[in-house]
Amino acid sequence: MSGEDAPAQQQNAVDQKQETKPAEEPKAEPPKTESAEAGATPAAAPEKAPEEETFTYRALVLTGYGGYDKVKLQVKKGKPALKAGEVQVRVKVCGLNFADLMARQGLYDRLPSPPVTPGMECSGVVEAVGEEVTDRKVGDKVMVLNRFGLWQEVAVVPASHTFLIPEGMSFEEAAALPVNYITAYLMLFDFGNLRPNQSVLIHSAAGGVGIAATQLCKTVKDVTVFGTASASKHEAISQGGVTHTIDYRTKDYVEEVRKISPKGLDIVLDPLGGSDTHKAYNLLKPMGKLITYGTANMLAGQRKNLIAVAKNWYHQFSIHTLSLIQGNKSVCGFHLGYLDGEMELITQAMNTILDLYKQGKVKPRIDSTWHLEQVGDAMRKMQERNNVGKVILTTEPMPEEEKKEEAKKEDKKEDKKKDDKKKDDKKKDDGKKEEKKEEKKKEEPKKEEKKEEKKEEEKKEEVKKEEK
Amino acid sequence: MSGEDAPAQQQNAVDQKQETKPAEEPKAEPPKTESAEAGATPAAAPEKAPEEETFTYRALVLTGYGGYDKVKLQVKKGKPALKAGEVQVRVKVCGLNFADLMARQGLYDRLPSPPVTPGMECSGVVEAVGEEVTDRKVGDKVMVLNRFGLWQEVAVVPASHTFLIPEGMSFEEAAALPVNYITAYLMLFDFGNLRPNQSVLIHSAAGGVGIAATQLCKTVKDVTVFGTASASKHEAISQGGVTHTIDYRTKDYVEEVRKISPKGLDIVLDPLGGSDTHKAYNLLKPMGKLITYGTANMLAGQRKNLIAVAKNWYHQFSIHTLSLIQGNKSVCGFHLGYLDGEMELITQAMNTILDLYKQGKVKPRIDSTWHLEQVGDAMRKMQERNNVGKVILTTEPMPEEEKKEEAKKEDKKEDKKKDDKKKDDKKKDDGKKEEKKEEKKKEEPKKEEKKEEKKEEEKKEEVKKEEK
Repeated sequence: MSGEDAPAQQQNAVDQKQETKPAEEPKAEPPKTESAEAGATPAAAPEKAPEEETFTYRALVLTGYGGYDKVKLQVKKGKPALKAGEVQVRVKVCGLNFADLMARQGLYDRLPSPPVTPGMECSGVVEAVGEEVTDRKVGDKVMVLNRFGLWQEVAVVPASHTFLIPEGMSFEEAAALPVNYITAYLMLFDFGNLRPNQSVLIHSAAGGVGIAATQLCKTVKDVTVFGTASASKHEAISQGGVTHTIDYRTKDYVEEVRKISPKGLDIVLDPLGGSDTHKAYNLLKPMGKLITYGTANMLAGQRKNLIAVAKNWYHQFSIHTLSLIQGNKSVCGFHLGYLDGEMELITQAMNTILDLYKQGKVKPRIDSTWHLEQVGDAMRKMQERNNVGKVILTTEPMPEEEKKEEAKKEDKKEDKKKDDKKKDDKKKDDGKKEEKKEEKKKEEPKKEEKKEEKKEEEKKEEVKKEEK
Repeated sequence: MSGEDAPAQQQNAVDQKQETKPAEEPKAEPPKTESAEAGATPAAAPEKAPEEETFTYRALVLTGYGGYDKVKLQVKKGKPALKAGEVQVRVKVCGLNFADLMARQGLYDRLPSPPVTPGMECSGVVEAVGEEVTDRKVGDKVMVLNRFGLWQEVAVVPASHTFLIPEGMSFEEAAALPVNYITAYLMLFDFGNLRPNQSVLIHSAAGGVGIAATQLCKTVKDVTVFGTASASKHEAISQGGVTHTIDYRTKDYVEEVRKISPKGLDIVLDPLGGSDTHKAYNLLKPMGKLITYGTANMLAGQRKNLIAVAKNWYHQFSIHTLSLIQGNKSVCGFHLGYLDGEMELITQAMNTILDLYKQGKVKPRIDSTWHLEQVGDAMRKMQERNNVGKVILTTEPMPEEEKKEEAKKEDKKEDKKKDDKKKDDKKKDDGKKEEKKEEKKKEEPKKEEKKEEKKEEEKKEEVKKEEK
């Protein structure tokens, strides 16, 4: 595949033969996998027959495993069928998660094979309700959690997978909340059983889960939070509640923790996998809990990196019960994507989180908002760990002038793409820093960062994998 | 070694060459490992010099790894030295634990090499306090938790390892409480994070930990307890709070649990190890916790059974983090014997347990009380799973008439011992049932069982290992 760096917008023009107009000017297309079977009869919000024919909406579609360009903006036609218990949501904002990045590389088995629309969370407005739905009505503002399929303008999901957005919460916050906060909550308070005076290590403390976990830790008295992040993010995570910041790029985080807490830690949240899981285990004090919830170490580069995957498997942590017994330790695995069936548990967690939100104790931090056309850049920002907080997508149409700007950028990128690809193939990590800094300037998200200093921080940052 | 079945009393007479009188008539002996360095100067309770010379006390000593006869009753001479922070306790009652049985076979690395006095818990009265001890005084009734060394009439331990016995609690209860209840408490409420409406599987629900765990489960609203035990114990464990009793000898406990709880369980407490740990893991529902706290499956026969040990190692549960992540499961290991340094944690747990005791919510159940001379029989009763509740030892001297009775029994046993040994060597488990029933009649503990029907139950029982 060519065009590793091309954003969704241009990819559509270049790669999608069946599309004759740009994606942002919707046109009738053959129905996609997720598109409607005509003839659906939504009970609570019946639509006119003509609309069913002309109903179109934009959707991001993973067309095959690979780089950022594999997620393309397409137009789906036909009103989605609405089964009993389901609601149709007009999506406003979508959240990006690490699982989406894994999925794009073919490393996440909860996503059906391409072509498929990714996306585990979004916010929006209910625009139709199916039979037997009693607790949602048209016009309800909701956040949605689903196994996949939410990166599109219209999504049909079980009503039980929606949660009412509380007053005062923006669609942006609502799209940033479900995955990160439920993940952090269940890890800390179900597996972790976090109590006052305990100590927690949070890797990637500036990431979505990291920020959520830090805020949740601060709801418990006298919890000490160790947080790793690159130095430029330390001020942000300190303000967010991290007690001891550790620059994992210049310091050995195990040593740093031991200096302050020689006996070790009560809880380690491990999103990295591989050899970092071993380190986490050794850092536990008696009755300590290691909660591993990802294999971010597997992500090296845009496309599936077989060496990184193999390395992660090779170093994968495996534990014998006798060691656990003698150490009085706990090892837990968590992934919200595999908790599908447990909506009761998830709803309980969500209710608690929303209470904390209303009390002002937790609040999602948005790193940047991108148009659907910019999904490639958004994914890149997250994968290269240049975010502080949540990366989200808006379904708002992209203004014409911005489109022209994007197109110019893309031309420049097109030239550089070939260089990129060569370097990617060589698998050389050195020498990329300058190039990426340059790229970053071009990739400013559509919405201006509220704090100027954040931009400065980001420019200084280097991607995590570079020092790995 | 001969005399696998000889109880401590007779072993002393037969095997201990340095002892010329029966142990129960104490006589000056060369100091043992644990015996006093003369010249100790206890601060708070100074003793007269002559007493330091003549101070003797009976102690059980593990003289080497092997069968029940390896624990011998000896007399130690000399007042134990009392360091700062320590107290000297006149022991009234000692608790037996599975770790003691493992230790006797050389399968528990927390016990120093023989000769050594085993015993992790006891109750008694403080009879001397060392310097710097401020919260204990002579005359305090205490229960004690220690790594080893408590199966003797006089024990010296750190004051921090003692807990005041609350009003109304007998010495018997106090000796039965620490290990079982702290173990059950930390497993259920620290690792397990037990909450209302959850489900718990308790293996050996009639054992010390099993009974404690059942009682603690009942302190949480609407917890469903599945308890395994042989059929004859079902009434007892039902009365104790087990919701669903399972006879593991005639039924597949996994199937039985699935019939009632198709989705599986929230918590499994696993004292067995080996293949049962695999079953436990598979029985967990999402967010479920497996807490493994022993390798009782290793205990097959009196002496270390290399086949059982190897089998246990071979079947030892080992888990990869990716499986944990995809299953959203937790695997924890617990053993109080390895929590030495964590007295703060243990004291917190103990305080909560004592509060529950005062509220009448937990109460140790005593299976049987034995004289120090009968420690072999006591261990056998526990190892063969013939107990309902705690097996304890009293330091009260054995009345003369009972000694004569014991002697007669021992003569009979001596004849049978050889048969036993042959069978043990052959490692044939079949055909032992009849023999053991016969033995059981001879081995009635000194204190009469309060409930006649309990005796009847015991006679019907067969040892767990028989059907393994």
